[in-house]
Amino acid sequence: MPTKKELLNRPIQHLDIKQHNVVSLVDAMRTMAYSSRDAARAADIYEMMLHDTDCGVILCLAGSLISAGLQQLFIDLVRNNMVDAIVSTGANIVDQDFFEALGFNHYMADDEYKYGAHDAMLRELAIDRIYDTFIDEDELRICDETTHQIANSLDPRPYSSREFIREMGAYLVRNGRTPQAGARDSIVLAAYEKNVPIFCPAFSDCSAGFGLVAHQHARQGKPMLSIDSAKDFYEITQLKIANPTTGVLMMGGGVPKNFAQDIIVAADILGVDASMHKYAIQVTVADVRDGALSGSTLKEASSWGKVDLTYEQMVYSEATLALPLIAGYAFHKNAHAARKGKKFATILDQVPVTA
Amino acid sequence: MPTKKELLNRPIQHLDIKQHNVVSLVDAMRTMAYSSRDAARAADIYEMMLHDTDCGVILCLAGSLISAGLQQLFIDLVRNNMVDAIVSTGANIVDQDFFEALGFNHYMADDEYKYGAHDAMLRELAIDRIYDTFIDEDELRICDETTHQIANSLDPRPYSSREFIREMGAYLVRNGRTPQAGARDSIVLAAYEKNVPIFCPAFSDCSAGFGLVAHQHARQGKPMLSIDSAKDFYEITQLKIANPTTGVLMMGGGVPKNFAQDIIVAADILGVDASMHKYAIQVTVADVRDGALSGSTLKEASSWGKVDLTYEQMVYSEATLALPLIAGYAFHKNAHAARKGKKFATILDQVPVTA
Amino acid sequence: MPTKKELLNRPIQHLDIKQHNVVSLVDAMRTMAYSSRDAARAADIYEMMLHDTDCGVILCLAGSLISAGLQQLFIDLVRNNMVDAIVSTGANIVDQDFFEALGFNHYMADDEYKYGAHDAMLRELAIDRIYDTFIDEDELRICDETTHQIANSLDPRPYSSREFIREMGAYLVRNGRTPQAGARDSIVLAAYEKNVPIFCPAFSDCSAGFGLVAHQHARQGKPMLSIDSAKDFYEITQLKIANPTTGVLMMGGGVPKNFAQDIIVAADILGVDASMHKYAIQVTVADVRDGALSGSTLKEASSWGKVDLTYEQMVYSEATLALPLIAGYAFHKNAHAARKGKKFATILDQVPVTA
Amino acid sequence: MPTKKELLNRPIQHLDIKQHNVVSLVDAMRTMAYSSRDAARAADIYEMMLHDTDCGVILCLAGSLISAGLQQLFIDLVRNNMVDAIVSTGANIVDQDFFEALGFNHYMADDEYKYGAHDAMLRELAIDRIYDTFIDEDELRICDETTHQIANSLDPRPYSSREFIREMGAYLVRNGRTPQAGARDSIVLAAYEKNVPIFCPAFSDCSAGFGLVAHQHARQGKPMLSIDSAKDFYEITQLKIANPTTGVLMMGGGVPKNFAQDIIVAADILGVDASMHKYAIQVTVADVRDGALSGSTLKEASSWGKVDLTYEQMVYSEATLALPLIAGYAFHKNAHAARKGKKFATILDQVPVTA
Repeated sequence: MPTKKELLNRPIQHLDIKQHNVVSLVDAMRTMAYSSRDAARAADIYEMMLHDTDCGVILCLAGSLISAGLQQLFIDLVRNNMVDAIVSTGANIVDQDFFEALGFNHYMADDEYKYGAHDAMLRELAIDRIYDTFIDEDELRICDETTHQIANSLDPRPYSSREFIREMGAYLVRNGRTPQAGARDSIVLAAYEKNVPIFCPAFSDCSAGFGLVAHQHARQGKPMLSIDSAKDFYEITQLKIANPTTGVLMMGGGVPKNFAQDIIVAADILGVDASMHKYAIQVTVADVRDGALSGSTLKEASSWGKVDLTYEQMVYSEATLALPLIAGYAFHKNAHAARKGKKFATILDQVPVTA
Repeated sequence: MPTKKELLNRPIQHLDIKQHNVVSLVDAMRTMAYSSRDAARAADIYEMMLHDTDCGVILCLAGSLISAGLQQLFIDLVRNNMVDAIVSTGANIVDQDFFEALGFNHYMADDEYKYGAHDAMLRELAIDRIYDTFIDEDELRICDETTHQIANSLDPRPYSSREFIREMGAYLVRNGRTPQAGARDSIVLAAYEKNVPIFCPAFSDCSAGFGLVAHQHARQGKPMLSIDSAKDFYEITQLKIANPTTGVLMMGGGVPKNFAQDIIVAADILGVDASMHKYAIQVTVADVRDGALSGSTLKEASSWGKVDLTYEQMVYSEATLALPLIAGYAFHKNAHAARKGKKFATILDQVPVTA
Repeated sequence: MPTKKELLNRPIQHLDIKQHNVVSLVDAMRTMAYSSRDAARAADIYEMMLHDTDCGVILCLAGSLISAGLQQLFIDLVRNNMVDAIVSTGANIVDQDFFEALGFNHYMADDEYKYGAHDAMLRELAIDRIYDTFIDEDELRICDETTHQIANSLDPRPYSSREFIREMGAYLVRNGRTPQAGARDSIVLAAYEKNVPIFCPAFSDCSAGFGLVAHQHARQGKPMLSIDSAKDFYEITQLKIANPTTGVLMMGGGVPKNFAQDIIVAADILGVDASMHKYAIQVTVADVRDGALSGSTLKEASSWGKVDLTYEQMVYSEATLALPLIAGYAFHKNAHAARKGKKFATILDQVPVTA
Repeated sequence: MPTKKELLNRPIQHLDIKQHNVVSLVDAMRTMAYSSRDAARAADIYEMMLHDTDCGVILCLAGSLISAGLQQLFIDLVRNNMVDAIVSTGANIVDQDFFEALGFNHYMADDEYKYGAHDAMLRELAIDRIYDTFIDEDELRICDETTHQIANSLDPRPYSSREFIREMGAYLVRNGRTPQAGARDSIVLAAYEKNVPIFCPAFSDCSAGFGLVAHQHARQGKPMLSIDSAKDFYEITQLKIANPTTGVLMMGGGVPKNFAQDIIVAADILGVDASMHKYAIQVTVADVRDGALSGSTLKEASSWGKVDLTYEQMVYSEATLALPLIAGYAFHKNAHAARKGKKFATILDQVPVTA
């Protein structure tokens, strides 16, 4: 049996799109077929979305993307004003991004581990596996405990996940987990500094959930912090109302996709005649045949009045292959040149928010 | 252009597994290959899970299953003590099950609508589409508004989704939406009557979210109801602590799968040495290649200490084909004969719950 | 390391659709959604196809279906006049069906073998693996050698695969590999006896290919048998011309699908105004996104003038789950009651065939 | 209704990997996860395969790749000695590559055509559709007729598909369909000039099949050309015997994959102790769950003794995205610098070939 140290020895390294000019490659794919053409059209739509400086760009993250080497790409989107709000699964933001911000790594697993032949052994070693990637569970427990401490440090009231994640950003600054202090950059930190709100609509479904359960358990009978998922929905709807033109750049489907699409209907229910998302891109490996949202087309979303049909593109590909082309294209075309940060988080501070 | 009435004229009808004895068919599939053998083994594991009367059976629902004709199947599982707790996306429980409980239907769409050729027209007619199925958006707005009224009627404090869904059950009873009063049965009603708790960990991500946003908007500056997703996680963890032997029957992946699997770790964090899920079945069309949870194997979950390897089975199939075989097999083998309802909801009332 | 005998101890057993009346189950699926509704509609189309006694039914087989437990199902279709011609990969017909006709079995592999963890060991044991199924390679070599002997016994001239496979049927009769002689039934035998022609358009791409290579190698410089794939195409086109109304029941895509669809164009090139396939069903797990034929829709085939749009249905499912429902439904509805065998093989004997 | 001219106005253009240096991008993907890491490892294996100058590189093509814009990529592999033999579906070589060599184009279809909403209209216009790509059927008939003429011009005897395709190359030279004469380059031409044999083991299953059927129909009762698929198998096996070290670069699965893998067994049957393919790469969107070859893993192939386990990599991606990275990487690393053309076609001329 290999040792834990032997298995956790090749850290995942994050792709830096700034180093790879894919413009000519993507331009050439535009006149091919299948996924390459779709990826090129998605890149075109992302470029248009960024040129449209009125457009608030919402990035949706489902699936394990940060552990897969895409952390720096998303940091670059945030720091270059290419994203104005993020809706994500908790795992991407807490278990993976914040986890790396605390100084931990994900690790490459050899091919033989991919299909589960050695999972009982991994269990014994306290190594968690995501397909071809390893995580040290002991380190993950430190991440859980950190969210517990953050919860303990806050006023005991209902928080949106956005508010809590902002406190995670503040924690990183306070504790020197910044590039300025010699630590690595992270999405949570960049979003904190750029006033890009991050929503995790199923926030207890991640490492933070463990911290929150521990917090609530210890506070039984006393005032405690809670996570109000309705407040999340209320807040993101306020963004749509404050900034009517929106576009979505979605990795995978799931709760983030549904949540980001539902804000048009929510605005309508609040009496505001909100327009559909003007631009929409989804990168997914799922397909339509089971009716689930992860693979349902953007055309289907238009029947619900959520996505406009003019500028929408599905890209059927695993994200680590397609997203470097789409995001790298827009970056190297300098599509964001005229964009200033929308600082959506400050809007949410000004709007009298509920609860 | 067809009229709305012409398009919404063939209601989805729900399969009644009680009418179809599939035992011999499934028995024959056990010695075949691929998905048929996997489905047969899943049926065997579900049968074992039910024979093990210590086992608390957790049903996880992701994807649009109720709209697809599986509502009665899940009602039958609840009413026959074949399920002790449910973790679901909000859409299945609110937009689809509760929606039908209010007297509305889903409708079959012709094949030509499946791939989005007419979505702009559907938008004009206020018809929402889920792949090959139609919904009347005006009726869905009534469902939203009903959850708004329920929110208004409750004490303004943080609720778990489970507590709120229980109030939805009470609403159905109060308003005569029961078989006894001539209305149709529903999962929300059956679970209410059988004390089967239903958790929607991303509860604002559905029709109820619209009602809650409207509620919070109207209550600005006043006491208001909130949905505490941490409380959901705390509650379901209490079930694992109170009833150590558990099994999971999962349709799709997503938040419900992750949430149900995480309770072993959460119990551990609360200082309880909880065992892994003893039995686990997942029916999914997703595959492993993108590292996302919807397709990640149960073996992978065992590396996280969440699922025991002895009795686990992935079935790669769309649920409407495979689940009638798996659930129908267990039902017609009368595997639940010795089971009494575990009434998990009453445990949660007794345990001093947080917030 | 387990022994070969230990690994090859649980034979695949073939599903007998005659024993499982699925009519009510399929009837109930007709008003559901997704794959269940698609399977029900496919069953309806197969029923219509059989009621249309003018219709020549062409069964297409791609993927490893016989090894998966579907041999008896196809035998039943042949013996009950529910299929008039077969187009298949060589593997299904030679390596799997003829192989079992010689008295050999396929074997169930345990779950741990599925993902390749032990393939090096299997190689040492001369056990071949198809996903979750084992084959004794030594037995497969006997199958190769049998086709070699058959080739040696025939006149040295170009044969269509159909002619050669017919000789394989004659071999089975001559050697007592018939139910009457106490051996098992097989597709090759049933087709031989019912005059159902079987085409394998890529015939050297299977166990027979090994036999033919050995034959040609030994005959260097002397007259030898060859396999004329153009003749296959010519022959099946003659069937379309002789019997203008046709339907296709296709498992998977690949060469069999393309070959069966191309006969409309081929007839046209021979100056006959042939109609498109009037009925078409395809069961597949592939999807459309890569442009490959295995997942391309039947609608796409209609743009090529190959399949009529009125009665066509794609069923996105692995065949062992969906086909027992589709074929079983038609069988138990007795849709074939008025059908007599079309004896297409005799047409090919009468038509002056080429080469 | 748009006119045919309006629909056929944007030709597919072929990606030129020589123009896009992807080395740094692929190097960065090596330490990520999922498909990007797999693609990087595949690129590494292709690089190793080319550095190993003993290795005969067999390229396998299934799916519609040439119509998708990959023609120039494969031409570049041939002309730069990066491929020594090709095994393909007929469609790629005849309907698509030879078709373009005759001066015709494939055309981009708008998104609305992808899912079949207008296939009846396309049928009327004699436009054939491959997912998001159009073909002028009248031009395709000219391609059919050209193969008919080639067949008529040859000695009436059994040919391997390789021999026939070589005659197609000679036809292009004779008729000025060469870059030197101002026409476009093609795979058939490049392979002809570089003595790279091309095998289509199901050769009648394509445009050439129509030409051959017409030929055989006109020659009834007279000597005629036939296509001996056994001869194909015999010939490619001779290559394995003459050049024992081999590697396979496979796009999709199907007949080409099976055929190329089976030559190890065939060599064994001819009494030669052939080694497994030393290097193996497969790019596919299929997955393992249905047991079909298109998605079966290379590990599974090793159980059959066909592929060595040391240097094998599956890449789950649509080819237009992954192959430019894999092939482009090897090209720009100049991995082929020391390679000379193996001129396998000349070996086949020297070996006394059968029939």
